Amino acid sequence: MDFAFDEKTEDYRKRLLAFMDEWVYPAEEDFHASYAGDWAPPPAVARLQEKAKLAGLWNLFLPGEHGAGLTNLQYAPLAELTGRSPSIAPAALNCSAPDTGNMEVLAQFGSPEQQERWLRPLLDGTIRSAFAMTEPQVASSDATNIGTRIAREGDEYVITGRKFYISGAMNPNCQIFIVMGKTDPGAARHVQQSMILVPRDTPGLTIERGMEVFGYDDGDHGGHAEMIFDGVRVPAGNLIGEEGSGFAISQARLGPGRIHHCMRLIGMAERALELMCTRSLSRTPFGKPLADQGVVQEWIAESRVRIEQARLLVLKAAWLMDTVGNKGAHTEIQAIKIAVPATTEWVVDKAIQTYGAAGVGQDTPLARLWAAARTLRLADGPDEVHKRSLARRELAAYRTP
Amino acid sequence: MDFAFDEKTEDYRKRLLAFMDEWVYPAEEDFHASYAGDWAPPPAVARLQEKAKLAGLWNLFLPGEHGAGLTNLQYAPLAELTGRSPSIAPAALNCSAPDTGNMEVLAQFGSPEQQERWLRPLLDGTIRSAFAMTEPQVASSDATNIGTRIAREGDEYVITGRKFYISGAMNPNCQIFIVMGKTDPGAARHVQQSMILVPRDTPGLTIERGMEVFGYDDGDHGGHAEMIFDGVRVPAGNLIGEEGSGFAISQARLGPGRIHHCMRLIGMAERALELMCTRSLSRTPFGKPLADQGVVQEWIAESRVRIEQARLLVLKAAWLMDTVGNKGAHTEIQAIKIAVPATTEWVVDKAIQTYGAAGVGQDTPLARLWAAARTLRLADGPDEVHKRSLARRELAAYRTP
Amino acid sequence: MDFAFDEKTEDYRKRLLAFMDEWVYPAEEDFHASYAGDWAPPPAVARLQEKAKLAGLWNLFLPGEHGAGLTNLQYAPLAELTGRSPSIAPAALNCSAPDTGNMEVLAQFGSPEQQERWLRPLLDGTIRSAFAMTEPQVASSDATNIGTRIAREGDEYVITGRKFYISGAMNPNCQIFIVMGKTDPGAARHVQQSMILVPRDTPGLTIERGMEVFGYDDGDHGGHAEMIFDGVRVPAGNLIGEEGSGFAISQARLGPGRIHHCMRLIGMAERALELMCTRSLSRTPFGKPLADQGVVQEWIAESRVRIEQARLLVLKAAWLMDTVGNKGAHTEIQAIKIAVPATTEWVVDKAIQTYGAAGVGQDTPLARLWAAARTLRLADGPDEVHKRSLARRELAAYRTP
Amino acid sequence: MDFAFDEKTEDYRKRLLAFMDEWVYPAEEDFHASYAGDWAPPPAVARLQEKAKLAGLWNLFLPGEHGAGLTNLQYAPLAELTGRSPSIAPAALNCSAPDTGNMEVLAQFGSPEQQERWLRPLLDGTIRSAFAMTEPQVASSDATNIGTRIAREGDEYVITGRKFYISGAMNPNCQIFIVMGKTDPGAARHVQQSMILVPRDTPGLTIERGMEVFGYDDGDHGGHAEMIFDGVRVPAGNLIGEEGSGFAISQARLGPGRIHHCMRLIGMAERALELMCTRSLSRTPFGKPLADQGVVQEWIAESRVRIEQARLLVLKAAWLMDTVGNKGAHTEIQAIKIAVPATTEWVVDKAIQTYGAAGVGQDTPLARLWAAARTLRLADGPDEVHKRSLARRELAAYRTP
Repeated sequence: MDFAFDEKTEDYRKRLLAFMDEWVYPAEEDFHASYAGDWAPPPAVARLQEKAKLAGLWNLFLPGEHGAGLTNLQYAPLAELTGRSPSIAPAALNCSAPDTGNMEVLAQFGSPEQQERWLRPLLDGTIRSAFAMTEPQVASSDATNIGTRIAREGDEYVITGRKFYISGAMNPNCQIFIVMGKTDPGAARHVQQSMILVPRDTPGLTIERGMEVFGYDDGDHGGHAEMIFDGVRVPAGNLIGEEGSGFAISQARLGPGRIHHCMRLIGMAERALELMCTRSLSRTPFGKPLADQGVVQEWIAESRVRIEQARLLVLKAAWLMDTVGNKGAHTEIQAIKIAVPATTEWVVDKAIQTYGAAGVGQDTPLARLWAAARTLRLADGPDEVHKRSLARRELAAYRTP
Repeated sequence: MDFAFDEKTEDYRKRLLAFMDEWVYPAEEDFHASYAGDWAPPPAVARLQEKAKLAGLWNLFLPGEHGAGLTNLQYAPLAELTGRSPSIAPAALNCSAPDTGNMEVLAQFGSPEQQERWLRPLLDGTIRSAFAMTEPQVASSDATNIGTRIAREGDEYVITGRKFYISGAMNPNCQIFIVMGKTDPGAARHVQQSMILVPRDTPGLTIERGMEVFGYDDGDHGGHAEMIFDGVRVPAGNLIGEEGSGFAISQARLGPGRIHHCMRLIGMAERALELMCTRSLSRTPFGKPLADQGVVQEWIAESRVRIEQARLLVLKAAWLMDTVGNKGAHTEIQAIKIAVPATTEWVVDKAIQTYGAAGVGQDTPLARLWAAARTLRLADGPDEVHKRSLARRELAAYRTP
Repeated sequence: MDFAFDEKTEDYRKRLLAFMDEWVYPAEEDFHASYAGDWAPPPAVARLQEKAKLAGLWNLFLPGEHGAGLTNLQYAPLAELTGRSPSIAPAALNCSAPDTGNMEVLAQFGSPEQQERWLRPLLDGTIRSAFAMTEPQVASSDATNIGTRIAREGDEYVITGRKFYISGAMNPNCQIFIVMGKTDPGAARHVQQSMILVPRDTPGLTIERGMEVFGYDDGDHGGHAEMIFDGVRVPAGNLIGEEGSGFAISQARLGPGRIHHCMRLIGMAERALELMCTRSLSRTPFGKPLADQGVVQEWIAESRVRIEQARLLVLKAAWLMDTVGNKGAHTEIQAIKIAVPATTEWVVDKAIQTYGAAGVGQDTPLARLWAAARTLRLADGPDEVHKRSLARRELAAYRTP
Repeated sequence: MDFAFDEKTEDYRKRLLAFMDEWVYPAEEDFHASYAGDWAPPPAVARLQEKAKLAGLWNLFLPGEHGAGLTNLQYAPLAELTGRSPSIAPAALNCSAPDTGNMEVLAQFGSPEQQERWLRPLLDGTIRSAFAMTEPQVASSDATNIGTRIAREGDEYVITGRKFYISGAMNPNCQIFIVMGKTDPGAARHVQQSMILVPRDTPGLTIERGMEVFGYDDGDHGGHAEMIFDGVRVPAGNLIGEEGSGFAISQARLGPGRIHHCMRLIGMAERALELMCTRSLSRTPFGKPLADQGVVQEWIAESRVRIEQARLLVLKAAWLMDTVGNKGAHTEIQAIKIAVPATTEWVVDKAIQTYGAAGVGQDTPLARLWAAARTLRLADGPDEVHKRSLARRELAAYRTP
């Protein structure tokens, strides 16, 4: 057992910390203000992407030959650092959700043609992608509820359904959608679903509107679309893997995605704690700095204690992913989904409270951080679904056979 | 001791419930969509105000001859009902903050000229007003921190300072500001401050920008302005009461305001609980309705239990205001500030969780309700300030003289 | 709506407050130390009972002709006061559980013979009683689980079963047990059960041992017995009411019992808050009194806020019991069971923390108060059962018929 | 970074797990019942100590030549296992507090004579010891408050003071006390204190009474004594280290002690979770096992998530102790004191709730586990002291120099 980062990780951390200081934080000030309202990222993103490529900080998330080749445990602390500036850093490093998960899917399950056509430009950062799973009419945490149909007709698949909260989809440069739907609704529970690639300009695909997240449309990150697939036809070769493999692929996609999300959340919590500390030292209601108030000290201490615990749990989950794989890390992957968004939400809430009115507004990143953390308590299944599943696994050990 | 509403209250409740059903709820659907982006209320507000006047549901908040003449205890349950649709109902009944508090100040402390010039049109609903207290550079929960100066020069006062989160101020029809500042920074702690009336078109007054609340600009309620007073001159007669009375007036303004806010919060919590129940009955992930899930049942039960307790506490505070006055109700007025926003935030959070992604978006009122409740945990002093003050009063009983 | 106590209540409160000061608090110091280890109350109890009778503070809990004739709403604030010294005051006033509930059952459902034989001496305080419902082998919160059999044989009933946590039963002067069992296990769910009177000296009844509550055996209150009914025979006339009425009687018994328990818990919380305040003023670690520490102030304020809310909810439940009866008060009766023990536990926990090691020991009442509050979170059904039931009632309003 | 135990640890774990199964768990059933009331451990302890020596599971806590020579990181997971049966396993392995801390002090700071006279028999398990620091009259979390005087008179020190909650001291075989007192009350804050060895039979030392912990006197572990030092005289050679070194030694003693306590707490939480699971599977109120109730599943999942986080934090603290020492591990050592007792208390509370009345009694270990966890929230400084200190360190990074 050893809690020190390895040399490679330390090297990347050093370079990424320098990159954050030199390029990312300075870009924060007018980032949201420079957004043109066109659902495309502000110009800073392209500029920083060039810098990141030069700095060798590109596609860090992707193991194997297509990406930087880091393990989950090596990438995790880097993802944390990008989470300190979540509107900019992940995009700058081509490490943004949902593109990261989509690239993983294409790298792992895509055909050579699919990889050539879509994975390459995604890796280059010249296009963006989206992942169309959640549906407005059903509880999508239960994959058997999915209503979208992917029906084979000759050499094509015909896709019909409605999706919403499809992140990044409003961005005109989001060229490709991975769509989850049912190819065989009558099959066994977990082989009904398939994933299929749908280019943006396919007839029948309509982007209806941007969904909000607590008043934010997240336009500078491509928004969250409600979209209709009305008899959308794509070649049969657009199916990813085999028919019925959709659920299994989505599970494979989840593990690394959770680790990325959770490590970024740790970074968000650290940022909030930093803001809480600096604010507490500078404000002096009733004659002494907030930092001398016992309640604020309690928040700071609790924040530190909670963050440390959460980070260790995510790192262990990453280590398990690397050593025993997705399945062996199942409990920890669920555990971090349960623990980390709640922890970050708690810390950000306290940071907001130290800022008073300013904490809920646009002059600090806190309100956005909060909205992101809160949303991750329900994104990709509400906490409660994961708790139930984890409990069942825990109980299984005690059931008499 | 008697927990039944009196006859008058019951009569008003019946009529208000009918008004909500007939006019308010139907106006909700396209209310936010019909907002023109001009910081003025959507057309529905004026239309519903006419209906409310006809229905005898106008200025219910105001005791005495200027308003409906209800006691705090009689108005409280009506305020609760308006809280069920907080973007529409309070405005429709001319019972919106901050106008209500401003009208109370003018009715109680305004000169006949001030009442004629500003109170009358406010009571008629033909203009709106704002209350300029919070400042960006200081912890405004401590009134001695206020940086804005109100300096006497001959027959005028000259006002210099910066304010932010001035709710309603972006509305072009917000004709009058009550501004809190210091007339005598060298005086004793609580007689440094004064309040003064500043018409919107006074030279030197600049509305800089709208502040956000978790991504919402609340444009349909006049937004929350950052504004500059740069040597703004008004006649000496614009001062409310006497020099140095600002703190005392603000305290008087607080009591009823808290009760209104808190009762509306109760209504918001009830609305969220209703939405949680209907959603839980209609969604069936994993083969059974959410309403049959133990965790959801726990949320529903806890919500009911917390709401009932919170409501009773606010009603008692209202009763104390009526029977022993602001000072005698001090502990309870602080207690509701501490308890109620947190309760409502908790209930709304759970309701959001039952809705999944839809809960954070624009298709249910939940995300807005949440933002409102969260903000009230810090508006008019963060909870922590009130807790400290309440604790000191509690401890005082045990101090040896 | 009126939050003032009526005149009668105020009069009783004044007299009870004086009684507490004169007799109860002074008896606290050596109360537990004077316990002889014989499961009988220390001598102070009998002495104080004489004083209470003289002071007209006797059987206050019992409405109607047998008792003091107070309403639930009138008795509630008196029960609160007795909760401030829960080992002594309730016993001194003949207002202790489980005797109070047993007397209510006998007064309401007992035959004239049963009343003459058992109710009279209980009202006089010359004997004590116990209520034998909970069983070790089943989840007794579900009455259909009860395993004890009450079988008719000729003119007798034969009782067989095992009970535990039968409070008061170790006291040799506990002369009579009301035993819950099944007369007809095949009947519909809620008419299987009956209640029957079993005198202590009946053959086949064995008191096995005293059960502990966090290390306390509560010997000075008669302990909590595990007992066996092994073919215990009693005359048929010992059945209370009719066969199959057991569940209904237990429900009737619950309402007032919950109000008494919850009001005493409020008194316990008040006592703990008082102790927290006095301790905070007298201890000065790190150079200033605990009372000046922000975290302690937060505890004190939160305690006050929570206690006020909890008390109002119990008073409202009492008022509903008086005005619309047990059934109409169902939601509130469950709500107080959910809210009040948790509130008191929270307050006592914080008080303990201000005392450090002394808080968990025998020199303050806090550790005992805590154990009592914690136990009431599971006594007469764990909170979770009540939450589920309350949630169902809440949801029922939204179900389409 | 590597989350696997090393080979040595795995070997010890395997052997200790076998020892727990073969000797410890079977001894649990009548352990408390076999306690003779004489404040000495039940006979099982001596018997198991022999087995532990034979199994090479002796003095595992002690690094260096005197003990098993394990690092903190190697011992930590073994301490966890002993925590699963905290009344028996630590004593059986000669790894009980407070002896462990006392042996560490003697091994590290004791003179050769002190080691020969006291350390050797402690290592052999032939005598027991106690650590007399806490005082009833002052807040002992602030060492400058300590009232006990250790005054030099010629070749002797004279000790005068009152201590309480001195764990283990009631045991007649507790032969030696390490007493904390002030040799120079006028010196700088942290060099006023010294530690001194006082044999049990020294004149002037009186053991007054056993203090309770929630109704438990912990007699089978030597209880918790209140004791008086009334002019107790010991040779000058009994001072540990130099005059004024008491605070520094106590700090050195703290680090490993916290890790031991916290890892045992993890084991206690695991035991409670195991009991919660088995109970949930076997109880079926309302027609289905508790294990199928959503709320119970939530408890189980949350317990697992919290325990995993807490354990990782303690292991990291142990690793820091080994690699950068007490000082470098300061934040983590405080963090585990804050996090772990609260986590274990939470888990045990939920386990109790699944047991209903049985959960608070003597037939499961839960009530004792709870009392232990609760007490550790205030033992060796209430959480709040540690939070404040941790917050100050966190804030220091942001202070402008």
